Amino acid sequence: MAAVKLLGFWASPFVNRVQIALNLKSISYEYIEQNLRSKSQLLLESNPVHKKVPVLIHGDKNISESVVIVQYIDEAWNDGPSILPSHPYDRANARFWAAYVTDKWFPLVSEYRTTEGAEAKAAVREKILEGLVILEEAFVKFSEGRGYFGGDNIGYIDIVLGSLLGWLRVREVTQGVTFLDKTIAPELAAWADRFTLHPAVADVLPTTEKLIELINGFTKSK
Amino acid sequence: MAAVKLLGFWASPFVNRVQIALNLKSISYEYIEQNLRSKSQLLLESNPVHKKVPVLIHGDKNISESVVIVQYIDEAWNDGPSILPSHPYDRANARFWAAYVTDKWFPLVSEYRTTEGAEAKAAVREKILEGLVILEEAFVKFSEGRGYFGGDNIGYIDIVLGSLLGWLRVREVTQGVTFLDKTIAPELAAWADRFTLHPAVADVLPTTEKLIELINGFTKSK
Repeated sequence: MAAVKLLGFWASPFVNRVQIALNLKSISYEYIEQNLRSKSQLLLESNPVHKKVPVLIHGDKNISESVVIVQYIDEAWNDGPSILPSHPYDRANARFWAAYVTDKWFPLVSEYRTTEGAEAKAAVREKILEGLVILEEAFVKFSEGRGYFGGDNIGYIDIVLGSLLGWLRVREVTQGVTFLDKTIAPELAAWADRFTLHPAVADVLPTTEKLIELINGFTKSK
Repeated sequence: MAAVKLLGFWASPFVNRVQIALNLKSISYEYIEQNLRSKSQLLLESNPVHKKVPVLIHGDKNISESVVIVQYIDEAWNDGPSILPSHPYDRANARFWAAYVTDKWFPLVSEYRTTEGAEAKAAVREKILEGLVILEEAFVKFSEGRGYFGGDNIGYIDIVLGSLLGWLRVREVTQGVTFLDKTIAPELAAWADRFTLHPAVADVLPTTEKLIELINGFTKSK
């Protein structure tokens, strides 16, 4: 099998997605931390369109964009556990909810931070909590009591949403507010703890403290 | 095979994507035009999260989000021509470029319209043309002289980009500017003409005139 390299930045949830997918499939890879303030020739050449991490280098092939890479990993290494389910309708659901998290729900967390005025902020938080109820329902439906959106093990929705937990907690701490409210979404809150401790995740997802140090300018690398 | 219905709105490029995919696979379906100002119970129940078209109803299953539906169609009806290529790396490329068009390039066309001031508008147009050069290169690479991003026939990138051609032409006419510049991207311009005339597309993609009537308030349905 051709050599696998990952160009990343430790605090990027998009890089974390790829690391989790590689861990789930037990794929050995060389991790190459990137300095995003002074981009390497390797990064510029391997992702000339976006010039961003993550980039997966698999032999002579370069793949970028986190969800594209995660699906590539699932399709190229089909001997490990599956990340996407096998039935077309279940696959459609996985892609639908991943898009919901990425395009609709998580952007509200950023919107909360940049919104000014207590009333306007409260309205954004209300939308976040409405989305949380929807995600709780989806979790209960897909997990069927088995622990993950993917069932007995981490799957596509778990990776896409779970990778954002570190930054979600940072926003909770820095904004002094709760988003992942246990009283509203008890199953999802328990899932978040379970996901964070999963062996494919535990060494990958940065701690809230490290991320807060980063935004405060104390940390430039891990 | 279970009955197939599509909830749509004729002028939506996202609905057009699904129509093209269904046509490519020669799937018979019932098209149900929706009034988006007064949403039907069927729409609200079949897409409770977004309450938007397109929704594909396949037997007792509801699928929404255009790119999710197109991938579902490709996976659920695997006896027709393939929409995504078969090799994982080629599939990754198809998804990468579809995301580039959707998230990065086409939004510039909307940004051009809402940008004020000649100089600022010119800067946005410059970015659109830079993206066009990138898309021209991608087209030449993937088509290998065979006519489409997908090779001899329409594929995933063709559908995602091609569905936007109607609205691209509307913006060109209403803004008095050229985006799909033949001198910059001759291959892509020829592809656009070829795509529009393809039998799976010709009856689906609305004419520029009809779309302009719509935005001028003259037309509410086809």
